[in-house]
Amino acid sequence: MFTPKPIGFVASPFQDTAAVPNGLGAKHEAEGVLKILPAFELGLTGIEGYSHLIVLWVFDRSRDFDGFDLMVTPPSDDQPHGVFSTRSPRRPNPIGFTVVELLRREGCSLHVRGVDMLDGSPILDIKPYLSSIPAEKLRRGWLAEAEVRKGAQGGRL
Amino acid sequence: MFTPKPIGFVASPFQDTAAVPNGLGAKHEAEGVLKILPAFELGLTGIEGYSHLIVLWVFDRSRDFDGFDLMVTPPSDDQPHGVFSTRSPRRPNPIGFTVVELLRREGCSLHVRGVDMLDGSPILDIKPYLSSIPAEKLRRGWLAEAEVRKGAQGGRL
Repeated sequence: MFTPKPIGFVASPFQDTAAVPNGLGAKHEAEGVLKILPAFELGLTGIEGYSHLIVLWVFDRSRDFDGFDLMVTPPSDDQPHGVFSTRSPRRPNPIGFTVVELLRREGCSLHVRGVDMLDGSPILDIKPYLSSIPAEKLRRGWLAEAEVRKGAQGGRL
Repeated sequence: MFTPKPIGFVASPFQDTAAVPNGLGAKHEAEGVLKILPAFELGLTGIEGYSHLIVLWVFDRSRDFDGFDLMVTPPSDDQPHGVFSTRSPRRPNPIGFTVVELLRREGCSLHVRGVDMLDGSPILDIKPYLSSIPAEKLRRGWLAEAEVRKGAQGGRL
């Protein structure tokens, strides 16, 4: 395997998990900054051309950091689901995945919309978001069912 | 940070990187199996309801495993780009990202379409693919430009 190392840190308005919009229909429109370490700045070359980025980051403050649950009850439902069919932070490898919209780049700072990370979260990787599954081909499992039951609409990218 | 551990391994038709479809317009339609370790099977509960899954995995055989390049020349272009604006395996954290279509589940085995991993690649995480950026809002940077130059169409999810 490998030893994860941060390539930067997220500057976000969220100081604790209770502040992050969550559950059915939550919109992730908060703005934040991906502060990349100067040693990695060259790796950002050309990133301005992309409208959306994939950010892989570390759930470094999920309670009991080393632990995980195989069954979790997410905020969007009142029933338990397997952790791999949720975005729960209590995963065997605590890696978060967020798609953000790139607003502008200033040197090592990527100003983005759509952060749902806590302030200071370590960033592992940034990748270009290349293309999407057509909506008519996408099935969204228990989440779609929970939305129908509660009359909500999903907003997470 | 944390210590990455495999939750399973990919069974894929690709034994070496030269066999993986690559470059502009490459289609990722190969079928494979995500073989999840029995200890994590409970975490798959409910995953059958999703049509597409995000797979995070390890580039465990990228040449000179511990190294990375900040500038890379990907197979889809003849010009160098920053590693974070490419999907190059030579990244500071060698984590791969692939979206696959879930064909069926048999216990710990997820039969999927769209693998681009080498056979035996360690799997770090599986997450549900929840929603997509509308095509009209997506800009695809140097890759779109390279496609225009070469008259190709992108196929990667």
